[in-house]
Amino acid sequence: MVSDTVEICEVGPRDGLQSVKDFVPTAVKTAWISAEAAAGVREIEVCSFVPERVVPQFADAAAVVALARTIPGLTVAALVPNLRGARDAVAAGVHKLTFTLSVSRSHSLANVRRTPDEQLAEFVRIVAFLASLEPERRPQLSAGLSTVFGCVYEGAVDEREVCRLAAALAEAGADDVSLADTTGHADPAQIRRVVTAVRAGIGERLTALHLHDTRGLGLANALAGLEAGIRSFDAALGGLGGCPFAPGALGNIVTEDLVYMLESMGLRTGIDIGRLLDARRALEAALPGERFVGHIHRAGLPKGFRGAPPATA
Amino acid sequence: MVSDTVEICEVGPRDGLQSVKDFVPTAVKTAWISAEAAAGVREIEVCSFVPERVVPQFADAAAVVALARTIPGLTVAALVPNLRGARDAVAAGVHKLTFTLSVSRSHSLANVRRTPDEQLAEFVRIVAFLASLEPERRPQLSAGLSTVFGCVYEGAVDEREVCRLAAALAEAGADDVSLADTTGHADPAQIRRVVTAVRAGIGERLTALHLHDTRGLGLANALAGLEAGIRSFDAALGGLGGCPFAPGALGNIVTEDLVYMLESMGLRTGIDIGRLLDARRALEAALPGERFVGHIHRAGLPKGFRGAPPATA
Repeated sequence: MVSDTVEICEVGPRDGLQSVKDFVPTAVKTAWISAEAAAGVREIEVCSFVPERVVPQFADAAAVVALARTIPGLTVAALVPNLRGARDAVAAGVHKLTFTLSVSRSHSLANVRRTPDEQLAEFVRIVAFLASLEPERRPQLSAGLSTVFGCVYEGAVDEREVCRLAAALAEAGADDVSLADTTGHADPAQIRRVVTAVRAGIGERLTALHLHDTRGLGLANALAGLEAGIRSFDAALGGLGGCPFAPGALGNIVTEDLVYMLESMGLRTGIDIGRLLDARRALEAALPGERFVGHIHRAGLPKGFRGAPPATA
Repeated sequence: MVSDTVEICEVGPRDGLQSVKDFVPTAVKTAWISAEAAAGVREIEVCSFVPERVVPQFADAAAVVALARTIPGLTVAALVPNLRGARDAVAAGVHKLTFTLSVSRSHSLANVRRTPDEQLAEFVRIVAFLASLEPERRPQLSAGLSTVFGCVYEGAVDEREVCRLAAALAEAGADDVSLADTTGHADPAQIRRVVTAVRAGIGERLTALHLHDTRGLGLANALAGLEAGIRSFDAALGGLGGCPFAPGALGNIVTEDLVYMLESMGLRTGIDIGRLLDARRALEAALPGERFVGHIHRAGLPKGFRGAPPATA
């Protein structure tokens, strides 16, 4: 029997801010993280560990992690593109590293200046580094495959290559693997097909989907993922986001709309939508120049809405 | 085997315009209808036959029908709330009547000043009227159940009442029945449940879904409907729409985004997205005061997109 609990990882502080030019003060970032945690979000990707000259927005990454770690019960995640980032993230004390590997050779070269197989070799070095740590200092290691469903440079992406790299990451030591529609190319039939194919190779090690709503199919794609057994999704408050190395990519699926969909279907997220909308309002006030999207903040919850029933266990 | 062809009925000229205060010139309406027909849309709900004092926007209903009927291959549909509207629609020469019956008593009273069962009795009178016509003058008779998935006045709507009214309409002589999420209350699990329940009663006589994107779940709901076997959907270009008697209701699902989703999944709509986007641009220019939404017009088709393959039969 498939679980009726769904995990949401808020990625706005990382994916939403990476293309925001003006530096967002650390206090704004941590207030955002705190507000979402207070609404019941249990995992937040709070930053990237990348060189400051590449993405100045994350110059305060270590400070953000340190503050986020003070929130009880919150899993503090960070994206790392290489061993150096992994070392910095571990030094900062993250609970979870998300390593990113792009299936598209062109996007991989643009994003990390390495081919997919060179990036796989970097992942192996990170696994070795983590193995050298005391067990209590070792964070969870997630591998995120990006441009899985299409690429702005290459168009279609070979599904066999997706399966090969997912299997290689799992074999190399990823605790879990996620699939990202970095640039909003996916359709629901493709989501089902690719999730099923990757699961045939690595089973339950494939846990999560990271979806963008570039072409309006974000929640339909999430639904297709749910139906294929996925119970963990990345999303961004207000749909903030995009990829600086993928022109035309727009924001992540909207956290509050996703939570509304899941709860209305009777799936439990543990998140209080009212408090999540409070967090959105506070963030909009703090980032007046950014484009916030979504529906439920404007329409409001339907009359009589109660969300999923509480867990009986 | 389920069909890989999906029918789209454009309802913007009716559902999109009914809450537009300023009268839209007949030439704008017919240019819109012609442009969509040229893009491959084969059915368009072009107006409502309601008293001019109730909805002045449809004062030119008969003229719009007459012009639309000159387009080869186009099914010209119109909404009718009562026998008088049905008589006018037949006199104008529509190919298809869509009679509307709201499951919610409160919404029904607000919309047509009749209870659902009084409206059912009106439907029986329309059936008798149509039976009195020469066969070649008799249009197709569709029955559209509205507020099927929730109501702004009443909240939840009883699914047994939906099934009872769908069966009553089919038995009374509806050629086909559709289910409308008038105010954007539906979730994908509910869509599957209700479609399955209604199909258990009236089988393939349930043909279509009419969805609104009030809370962002429109395309996810369409996907759930597809999976439950539905192969006909209403939609509005640019997501125009709303219901004057359902406060807070926003527009229909966006025709061009729906067509993009279906075609990307390999389902055939017969519609050329590029020409559909041309029609949207022309309509936006003609209606500068209206709010157009959607995604694919801005993001563009993904690199390498080809849509569904042509039919082999």
